[in-house]
Amino acid sequence: MATAPILPDADVSPEAAAVFADIRATRGTDFINNFWRALANDPPLLKATWERLKAVMGGTRDGGLDPLTKELIYIAVSVANGCDYCVHSHTAAATAKGMTEAQRADLLAVVAMASQTNALATALGVTVDPEFDAGR
Amino acid sequence: MATAPILPDADVSPEAAAVFADIRATRGTDFINNFWRALANDPPLLKATWERLKAVMGGTRDGGLDPLTKELIYIAVSVANGCDYCVHSHTAAATAKGMTEAQRADLLAVVAMASQTNALATALGVTVDPEFDAGR
Amino acid sequence: MATAPILPDADVSPEAAAVFADIRATRGTDFINNFWRALANDPPLLKATWERLKAVMGGTRDGGLDPLTKELIYIAVSVANGCDYCVHSHTAAATAKGMTEAQRADLLAVVAMASQTNALATALGVTVDPEFDAGR
Amino acid sequence: MATAPILPDADVSPEAAAVFADIRATRGTDFINNFWRALANDPPLLKATWERLKAVMGGTRDGGLDPLTKELIYIAVSVANGCDYCVHSHTAAATAKGMTEAQRADLLAVVAMASQTNALATALGVTVDPEFDAGR
Amino acid sequence: MATAPILPDADVSPEAAAVFADIRATRGTDFINNFWRALANDPPLLKATWERLKAVMGGTRDGGLDPLTKELIYIAVSVANGCDYCVHSHTAAATAKGMTEAQRADLLAVVAMASQTNALATALGVTVDPEFDAGR
Amino acid sequence: MATAPILPDADVSPEAAAVFADIRATRGTDFINNFWRALANDPPLLKATWERLKAVMGGTRDGGLDPLTKELIYIAVSVANGCDYCVHSHTAAATAKGMTEAQRADLLAVVAMASQTNALATALGVTVDPEFDAGR
Repeated sequence: MATAPILPDADVSPEAAAVFADIRATRGTDFINNFWRALANDPPLLKATWERLKAVMGGTRDGGLDPLTKELIYIAVSVANGCDYCVHSHTAAATAKGMTEAQRADLLAVVAMASQTNALATALGVTVDPEFDAGR
Repeated sequence: MATAPILPDADVSPEAAAVFADIRATRGTDFINNFWRALANDPPLLKATWERLKAVMGGTRDGGLDPLTKELIYIAVSVANGCDYCVHSHTAAATAKGMTEAQRADLLAVVAMASQTNALATALGVTVDPEFDAGR
Repeated sequence: MATAPILPDADVSPEAAAVFADIRATRGTDFINNFWRALANDPPLLKATWERLKAVMGGTRDGGLDPLTKELIYIAVSVANGCDYCVHSHTAAATAKGMTEAQRADLLAVVAMASQTNALATALGVTVDPEFDAGR
Repeated sequence: MATAPILPDADVSPEAAAVFADIRATRGTDFINNFWRALANDPPLLKATWERLKAVMGGTRDGGLDPLTKELIYIAVSVANGCDYCVHSHTAAATAKGMTEAQRADLLAVVAMASQTNALATALGVTVDPEFDAGR
Repeated sequence: MATAPILPDADVSPEAAAVFADIRATRGTDFINNFWRALANDPPLLKATWERLKAVMGGTRDGGLDPLTKELIYIAVSVANGCDYCVHSHTAAATAKGMTEAQRADLLAVVAMASQTNALATALGVTVDPEFDAGR
Repeated sequence: MATAPILPDADVSPEAAAVFADIRATRGTDFINNFWRALANDPPLLKATWERLKAVMGGTRDGGLDPLTKELIYIAVSVANGCDYCVHSHTAAATAKGMTEAQRADLLAVVAMASQTNALATALGVTVDPEFDAGR
């Protein structure tokens, strides 16, 4: 099921084919998942999305986050946004990057905890304490 | 603004006062933020929420996530859930736990990236690739 | 703060004034909250929204839900959707309809519980059990 | 489809098996749905989630909400959070607890109504009326 | 899969059958999609929902939005709310109303852009500039 | 209130100052709103976000959407995501681009309608009709 054709390699434009080639080279696998194949119907959006993803998720600048931590954050956002596809694809990515059972367990526990207190804070409608203001 | 009284210490029940004492001891500060003061109108819920929070966020089991990484995940969920209070309180908590500028920058970049592809994956309506199924 | 003028009585159209009159008569109070005053910039939408609200929230058909239970459900949805305005206005409405401290406490506990398991179920990505299918 | 194995009874740890036994005893059925079987990969999270669920949803304290009303609120939150699994499992639970056609109809009407005005209030960006502030 | 029976024509009440007839006449097709067939279990909600939808999406008042633009907005909301069913049904509707590849591409790009900055603005927790206040 | 300093012109880095200059030139105004001033704490993210925004929202390719329609879609997403800041800033932007009262009224009506049926479709849990599958 999809709202756009899931394009096989034979049907993508040269611009999209070049992105597919970069995905394969970057990830070291021939597998291209359906998200990119559906996005390939719009080559400029495919290219912009992939290049930004590679820049954000790929490297680690000094003092920044390692690739696995980034994947855990990605999963957390995807869960909260209710994106079933992304939860599956990024859980697979995190596993491929070495996520342990204990890390996965902590991730789920924190996501559940935050979801719970997010709801409570919203229900209580509490104004943010001035102590938390970093605006100046 | 709130949907329940923000209780000063003088107005909380003994059960809630005991939780406040534990929050202060655990965090090493006298400051109790408004979330807990509003939750104190329901002492059993205050107690259950705090004890679970302490268990989830506090310790690190073997191979699990460190406290700062947990805070980053907490912020990510709070952003995606649109909880303004939680975003402020947990950003302050992460800063207190040593979050660097570079880590904060990576966190924001990943949260923005995930939000973007979450929307695209949902718009494309793509079925999850069988390669991502870990159900068996 | 608002994205449209908060109209005082003197500035609303006759069509909007008629809706305001019905809100006052139905609720037995002269107070018109800001939501309706902002919506009054578009009288047809004001009228359609109020009339549907009155029909849905007002009466109780045989075997249906009482007005207070409806308000609790309204609050629950508003919390999950992160609508700060609605959480405040409907908590006030529920209080006016007799919500007790114990009912409020249960409401918050259930909302927090559901938010937590919603996140876990999404994170686990589990397919719905066929036992839950009522489609036939 | 899932991001973790759906564990059959034969594959769960003793700690998870004890939780399964309590679920069966509490619910009076041998059926364990997939949510718990996926959560069983992390026995401590399974145990903490189930015990909290049992405490929140099970009993009724003086003046509090009855089990069916709690299920209706659970469904409302699950709909707003877009959790397909939870909508199915808790609709089944509400039906098992005696939800009538008329109650179900009211639930859907209120959820739709709240979703609609949540969106309008957010679009209008209206500041909360001071009359709704219960913070003091 | 569904939480209510998907009613074939033979099983709907006379009130629901009248709505089905109006859907067919309005759309110029015999096809009734599953959303309406599930909603037909509650004929009054079916009727209220369809009549409002027809009024909102159908006509164009002077200076208002054309039907295709309305569908694009509908898709955008459905994506952000994570409603897989609605994304599919309204993408099909937009296609039927003449959405071009270039319009579809722009829609996806804007939805992704907004999702990204929505997350960043929430993460930054910035107070709304007074310049944007239209409340007076 | 914010989770990061709202930087005045005097405090931004040269890289951020260059982005501010481009925002001013592109928009034809000296005003820089707080979102960009908070984002300026991370110049690379500021630059990447602004350049993508300018590319997506600015031009119109052949057959694509005009700038005002893009703003309407942006508002719709921001409402559904509950981003109060974005709702205000993009409503102001749409007004600056000529949004009429009638267009604004239609926008609100469609957003409310979609939110309502999104909730109903999720509550009904209906599987997508095969007629809507564009995956092949």
